[in-house]
Amino acid sequence: MAGKSPEEQHPVKAYGWAARDPSGILAPFKFSRRATRDVDVRFKVLYCGICHTDLHFIKNDWGFTTYPLVPGHEMVGEVTEVGKSVTKVKVGDKVGVGCLIGSCRSCDSCAQDLENYCPKQILSYGSPDFDGTPTYGGYSNEMVCDEHFIIKFPESLPLAGGAPLLCAGVTVYSPMKYYDIAKPGNHIGINGLGGLGHVAVKFAKALGAKVTVISTSDRKKDEALNHLGADNFLVSRNPEEMQAAVGTLDGILDCVSAKHALLPLLGLLKTHGKLITVGAPAEPLELVLSPLNMGRKMIGGSYIGGIAQTQEMIDLAAKHNITADIEIVAMDQVNTAMERLHKGDVRYRFVIDVANTLKAP
Amino acid sequence: MAGKSPEEQHPVKAYGWAARDPSGILAPFKFSRRATRDVDVRFKVLYCGICHTDLHFIKNDWGFTTYPLVPGHEMVGEVTEVGKSVTKVKVGDKVGVGCLIGSCRSCDSCAQDLENYCPKQILSYGSPDFDGTPTYGGYSNEMVCDEHFIIKFPESLPLAGGAPLLCAGVTVYSPMKYYDIAKPGNHIGINGLGGLGHVAVKFAKALGAKVTVISTSDRKKDEALNHLGADNFLVSRNPEEMQAAVGTLDGILDCVSAKHALLPLLGLLKTHGKLITVGAPAEPLELVLSPLNMGRKMIGGSYIGGIAQTQEMIDLAAKHNITADIEIVAMDQVNTAMERLHKGDVRYRFVIDVANTLKAP
Repeated sequence: MAGKSPEEQHPVKAYGWAARDPSGILAPFKFSRRATRDVDVRFKVLYCGICHTDLHFIKNDWGFTTYPLVPGHEMVGEVTEVGKSVTKVKVGDKVGVGCLIGSCRSCDSCAQDLENYCPKQILSYGSPDFDGTPTYGGYSNEMVCDEHFIIKFPESLPLAGGAPLLCAGVTVYSPMKYYDIAKPGNHIGINGLGGLGHVAVKFAKALGAKVTVISTSDRKKDEALNHLGADNFLVSRNPEEMQAAVGTLDGILDCVSAKHALLPLLGLLKTHGKLITVGAPAEPLELVLSPLNMGRKMIGGSYIGGIAQTQEMIDLAAKHNITADIEIVAMDQVNTAMERLHKGDVRYRFVIDVANTLKAP
Repeated sequence: MAGKSPEEQHPVKAYGWAARDPSGILAPFKFSRRATRDVDVRFKVLYCGICHTDLHFIKNDWGFTTYPLVPGHEMVGEVTEVGKSVTKVKVGDKVGVGCLIGSCRSCDSCAQDLENYCPKQILSYGSPDFDGTPTYGGYSNEMVCDEHFIIKFPESLPLAGGAPLLCAGVTVYSPMKYYDIAKPGNHIGINGLGGLGHVAVKFAKALGAKVTVISTSDRKKDEALNHLGADNFLVSRNPEEMQAAVGTLDGILDCVSAKHALLPLLGLLKTHGKLITVGAPAEPLELVLSPLNMGRKMIGGSYIGGIAQTQEMIDLAAKHNITADIEIVAMDQVNTAMERLHKGDVRYRFVIDVANTLKAP
């Protein structure tokens, strides 16, 4: 790209909302996107989910945010233009883009459809793109992306409720498949009923598992059992309930991102049981190894999913009518939504109605 | 067994060395064993390895020792009598017994040849036997045991050097197989070169893996590379060496039983790599979850192995001439050996020459 001016590289005017500093306050922002290459799909953003990661990024919680930052990696939209070699979708199709818009396409991970573990993966926002320019996410009017990273949205899947699946959905679906914990005959626990946990319950049920929700209080019990379809509800602060459940679970998907105790969770597992963490607390946790040894148990991690698996997850969601439970907000409500998200005041995911509420500056 | 006197239950005079209190001092001890039942194999103990677990048990480190305690769960010997339904071995055969002499034989674990995870497993010493009497281990003149728990010793496997494999060998072999880390094309690390680690290197090589020994100093480097057959040696306290090895290992078998840092070990793993712990430090370790997530890595445990797998391991050892590196001691040197073991002053396993040095009281 040497020798090209920014205008030549990115000639298409675009706009969205960006954070400018670690206050994390989002405000209207003008920028530009590249023209549609042969391999690219261009789409008008219709909805974009608000992920907890967005909150960490706008406040520079992890120390590597570059400003201005346009967040959003749970975006769905309608195709407006396709490059001449594109075969996956056509103009007018509904599509989604999740956390990834690029990877090296040649490493071992990429060769196994695991672009999410490619060391050169390009994130949908806040990441250097292949041309060195920063990527801008879905809190914006339009998006352009290599077709490889485009997810086809089945007609039957609601766009707004489907958007959060592009991150939250595949984050819980991928480890359920890789670690083989959610299947008929298995009884699994979902620890933490938030943005990740509530879709985890739905996918685990769709995959045929018996599901116990584990939560610190019984506040969400009725909802878990009667709305989300969980089979059991276990209050982790109730010693009697926990004791009665010792050794009953084949696996646990641990969606809690605050510091918490692993030992009681390991105790709930059967011999050879698997504790899978996707919440990633910032602080180190305490790990007692003896229950791992005596019961041949394991603790495994996972991070989003590859593109093929993301498509598989979206197709399964369409088949089983799985969507996230969402609250739709207007673009100019995004800062309030972030404050509420910070306090955990959302059931279970905010989605921005981009197409109807993002105004051209 | 109600109504039977101790003499009727256990009519056979036996003797060995026992600890009487948490000082852990071992001294001559007379006891008795049961008569040979139809399913039992009786054998004269020839050699018995000294496992670090024996040291923990004699000193009641774990709080559940019952005295008097006759340790020893790495015993080999020669069959002196078999019950009428025994088919596995005959009088004169060489046999071994490891950590287990009983299990329920009907639970899910037992049905899968995983007697080591049976909740009703009976340990070779310090455990209530099926009749409620305490079990006594291999620091004794003879042993009697259900043939199911007897391991056949191939003629070609040296008895003294083979004895420690019954615990140390299967402890490292079982997780290498279950977690599928030691195989051609894989590069694995063995952390800690002691009783477990040194046989782990030998089995990992026999299974076809490339092996890097990880140790806190280079004291054992020459031995690891030139005697044990390791391919590489990595000093964990050398930051440059550690940095250069980041992301190079498919798996690590962590044989360290002292408190240690997991994060550098997780860093050595490739994406999807597996850190398997068999050392079981008493204190909790610190676990940072993000490397598990970002690299889909896992930490798994394992505890000895089932009887079928123990036999498989012994047969593989015979095929590849794998034995533990041992120092043979006389029965009356056992207390000194325990002191040296406590200080880590052994390369790599003590084995008691029971047949030639245990005197009848």
